[in-house]
Amino acid sequence: MNESLLLIAHGSRREASNDEVRELTVRLRSAAADRFHEVDCAFLELAEPSIPDGIQRLIDGGAQAVTVLPYFLAAGRHVIQDVPALVAEKRADHPEVDIRIAPYLGTSDEIPRLLLSLV
Amino acid sequence: MNESLLLIAHGSRREASNDEVRELTVRLRSAAADRFHEVDCAFLELAEPSIPDGIQRLIDGGAQAVTVLPYFLAAGRHVIQDVPALVAEKRADHPEVDIRIAPYLGTSDEIPRLLLSLV
Repeated sequence: MNESLLLIAHGSRREASNDEVRELTVRLRSAAADRFHEVDCAFLELAEPSIPDGIQRLIDGGAQAVTVLPYFLAAGRHVIQDVPALVAEKRADHPEVDIRIAPYLGTSDEIPRLLLSLV
Repeated sequence: MNESLLLIAHGSRREASNDEVRELTVRLRSAAADRFHEVDCAFLELAEPSIPDGIQRLIDGGAQAVTVLPYFLAAGRHVIQDVPALVAEKRADHPEVDIRIAPYLGTSDEIPRLLLSLV
């Protein structure tokens, strides 16, 4: 089964911020090579590709399952409403593909330890 | 020496998101009890306390050093400009207090591993 991963971020007017997400995607791709056929990123707004386009690219690349992984810290409107709405549309377009949304980064139990490693 | 830690987040119109940051602060406080006299949180906008007020509370509580820890994933305008400007003002007001800004969460090398633990 061809499973692919789409890291999704908010997107920024500052292109260097979007590039940070793209560089993270490269690191994620090598870390996840044994689990995912392809790893890519997409943005909710202000940067390309969009989330629907990012999912479509993976499907066009042969993905039978796509995991959407929100690179978000808090369950704001984007995580609660916008992302699920975009994913629901893609599911309707491609009922043959298993498209699911993983928990967002902020839910990780390891965040406190990571934060303390920075100070 | 009384060192205190201030976790700073963007702030959201959705109060549940701000409460997520406050709950994280509680977890951070117990995880960091051996290193920091006090651990608190503050918000850039849309929630209380503000970053200047958060720093001031810690100083009023006796902090001789305050580490400002940005709970941000990318180096957008907020991390690059807004937070340093607010901190610079507080440094000018309180030259006797060592106020420094830690690297933001998104710089952690462990992010890829954390992301993969979510899928």
